[in-house]
Amino acid sequence: MKHRLSAYFEPESVAVIGASNTAGKPGNDVIRNILANGFEGKLYLVNPKGGDILGLPVHPSIESLPDGIDLGIIILPAKETPEAVRQCVHKGIKHFVLAAGGFAEYDEYGAQIQQELTDIIRENGIRVIGPNTSGHTSTPHHFTSTFFPLGKIRRGKVSYIAQTGNFATHSMKYILTGEHFGVSRVIGFGNKIDVEESEALAYLADDPETDAILIYLESIKRPREFLEVAKKVTRIKPVVMLKGGVTEAGKHAAVAHTATMAAEDRLVDGMLRQAGIVRIWDYTHLILAGKAFSMIPLPKGNRVSFMAPSGAMLVVLADLCARLGLEVPDVEPATRQKLQDMSPSYIRMRNPVDIWPAAYMHGVEIAYRDAMEAVLQDPNIDAVIPVLMLTKDTGIPSYNFIVELARKYPEKPIVITFSGDKQCMEDCKAFVEPRGVPTFFEIEQPFEVLSILYRCRLAMNRPR
Amino acid sequence: MKHRLSAYFEPESVAVIGASNTAGKPGNDVIRNILANGFEGKLYLVNPKGGDILGLPVHPSIESLPDGIDLGIIILPAKETPEAVRQCVHKGIKHFVLAAGGFAEYDEYGAQIQQELTDIIRENGIRVIGPNTSGHTSTPHHFTSTFFPLGKIRRGKVSYIAQTGNFATHSMKYILTGEHFGVSRVIGFGNKIDVEESEALAYLADDPETDAILIYLESIKRPREFLEVAKKVTRIKPVVMLKGGVTEAGKHAAVAHTATMAAEDRLVDGMLRQAGIVRIWDYTHLILAGKAFSMIPLPKGNRVSFMAPSGAMLVVLADLCARLGLEVPDVEPATRQKLQDMSPSYIRMRNPVDIWPAAYMHGVEIAYRDAMEAVLQDPNIDAVIPVLMLTKDTGIPSYNFIVELARKYPEKPIVITFSGDKQCMEDCKAFVEPRGVPTFFEIEQPFEVLSILYRCRLAMNRPR
Repeated sequence: MKHRLSAYFEPESVAVIGASNTAGKPGNDVIRNILANGFEGKLYLVNPKGGDILGLPVHPSIESLPDGIDLGIIILPAKETPEAVRQCVHKGIKHFVLAAGGFAEYDEYGAQIQQELTDIIRENGIRVIGPNTSGHTSTPHHFTSTFFPLGKIRRGKVSYIAQTGNFATHSMKYILTGEHFGVSRVIGFGNKIDVEESEALAYLADDPETDAILIYLESIKRPREFLEVAKKVTRIKPVVMLKGGVTEAGKHAAVAHTATMAAEDRLVDGMLRQAGIVRIWDYTHLILAGKAFSMIPLPKGNRVSFMAPSGAMLVVLADLCARLGLEVPDVEPATRQKLQDMSPSYIRMRNPVDIWPAAYMHGVEIAYRDAMEAVLQDPNIDAVIPVLMLTKDTGIPSYNFIVELARKYPEKPIVITFSGDKQCMEDCKAFVEPRGVPTFFEIEQPFEVLSILYRCRLAMNRPR
Repeated sequence: MKHRLSAYFEPESVAVIGASNTAGKPGNDVIRNILANGFEGKLYLVNPKGGDILGLPVHPSIESLPDGIDLGIIILPAKETPEAVRQCVHKGIKHFVLAAGGFAEYDEYGAQIQQELTDIIRENGIRVIGPNTSGHTSTPHHFTSTFFPLGKIRRGKVSYIAQTGNFATHSMKYILTGEHFGVSRVIGFGNKIDVEESEALAYLADDPETDAILIYLESIKRPREFLEVAKKVTRIKPVVMLKGGVTEAGKHAAVAHTATMAAEDRLVDGMLRQAGIVRIWDYTHLILAGKAFSMIPLPKGNRVSFMAPSGAMLVVLADLCARLGLEVPDVEPATRQKLQDMSPSYIRMRNPVDIWPAAYMHGVEIAYRDAMEAVLQDPNIDAVIPVLMLTKDTGIPSYNFIVELARKYPEKPIVITFSGDKQCMEDCKAFVEPRGVPTFFEIEQPFEVLSILYRCRLAMNRPR
């Protein structure tokens, strides 16, 4: 194993200390998750009761484990955790995931236990993720240490680094049930007494399984190292970050959450800028941007064409583009003529495109298809956002034309949003997303996401 | 009829000029819509072909109509519209909806026709909505003039004033298919050569069927009158407005849309502030706020409690509250104790509420129910936002407890958002929304909406 975090992302043997036979307990769910993801390495379980769990034999003690296991997942109460780590160290385990909460984020006593763990780490040269984390995931290696009931996690090319295991738990559940993209590496740090974001970022920088990196952090442990690593990776991969604990209220919550003291936000902002990391402000955008990175290329520029079934939407979305730093340029005269030719004479066609009269004349599919192709061919346009108007009464297109256009113009992102009948929107999403075209239900979202991707492009191309 | 717009919102007899026997044509859909909504007045159809349409007899000419019909809906091409209006005036019709586009928003010739219409209005003292509008709706009167295929429109207590018929067409289709709230009056102005927002606002100010007013405008025709009316109505009803054509790109699109020149945005902003109108920036918020107004009261203050299944969400949402002008205050010691009593000792409970450990101990329903009730009872809290974590593996609550809490604490808004399994979120929405509790899928939205409602409260209570 080349990298110091490889034992986490590519373990060959894993022990679960605190394995449980009771469905619904974290010590049970973690085993189910490991099995559901098809882990191909060796899995050892430890519980004083012995017997077997989910068909696997249980070791009654850490002592009875074989030597030299790659990774120990410890799911025991805080106060039992240090002794378990010590025993594991004795068996040659060097890498740990510590699940329990109740450390420095809770009280003085917890802070003492956390200090004890820190001492053990220093004395033994071991590595620890956590405590107070819900684990990590590596889909290329079919492995996860999360104890939240997830089942099989969809494999993909975006990776998440998070202060806690949020993206290993309920947010991942949403991604698995509500979206069509997958993930590569996911890591939650919790109180990060050892493994932290600079190391994780360095790992992902060189990771062929990671195309884009999304980060949620409440604190940056070693800002200088983080900056150095980020400066390099942001030139080759997009890196987007949501910083938690920006306001007084947020900082207060962050202390209660992971016992981390947030830095002065101006400093963070300056550092991220220097690092080439694109900063975002909404939690939801971490998920939506993950979808976008999974399906579309970064746009070459910020010049957008969009089409909507309503003049009011064209006005509002043109305003939105200006706010987001996106341009809505004029198209070539020839493009304009193409748009005019498909429209009734009483509409003067241009960019943005008033599509409904054309859809009324030629049907929804032909109108959107021809208008999209016209602007995709235009050299002034970097990305296209159709607001699809979908109702059974006005005709439902086959949707395949969208997928075909995306394949035909692979360098120009196509991002879909909707108006009209909710069920038709769901049907369209279900068709186009597994075929690589992202959809967003609110009309602002494609623009917000495209703006994030454009800022990533700027960061990648920034002067040295 | 008391008010000059009553003929639009409470017509007793209506003529459709340009009625069509062809399904899918506007002149056909408008009749279907009128019938689907159970209009109880008299409906006359005009088409030179005669015969009957949808079982109703067709008059071959305007001339053959009876005298004194309340309202004429004219669905004819732009150039045929002035003559049709003249003939209708001859038959004593005084109120019109003009559907066609192709007027001043299109070209010089269209501008000439528009001027001709303006002259007819002045000479005859008639009233016109449009041209270039997709109509209006009055659910209390079971009537609509929209030609977009909608069917029965759900009745409710929020009214929409829009530059165009957006909210009478595909946005209404979304509301009808994707949401559970209804509307009262909806009016789209289009090029507004006559009826405009000041009059509409004055009508809605006195309308017992309207509890809240949502506005989308690209221009304000008579700013002084609008300001005077708004100043009064905003003290008794919430008024929220999205202004289109704020940026250069948006202004450009607005001219193409409704031939309106947008005012300097600083002036608009100052006027809205003075008028007590709450300004918003997203089209989506016009719909989401409509839902909120339909289901929850305005909060008495800006002090929010929220609970989430993740410490990271607590941090991010606390930051969001600060950005939105919402407070996340400490709760009373007794409330804190209640929260602590239901939680494992390793979590220190406070506001915002880290709910998952309690949900793990007591089940999702009991944990959320008891925590919500604790903070609802707290005198420091004005509104409660639970981020419900829903997956089948971790247990699905009955949801009825949410409805019961909303009834038990009617003065404190409860707004739901989600994390976890998408289908479970959909199920929850389908249960609680028809029972009056609004849900929003993205975790930022309840906060955004509550912030809008709080600003409406401030506007209502503003000093004289």
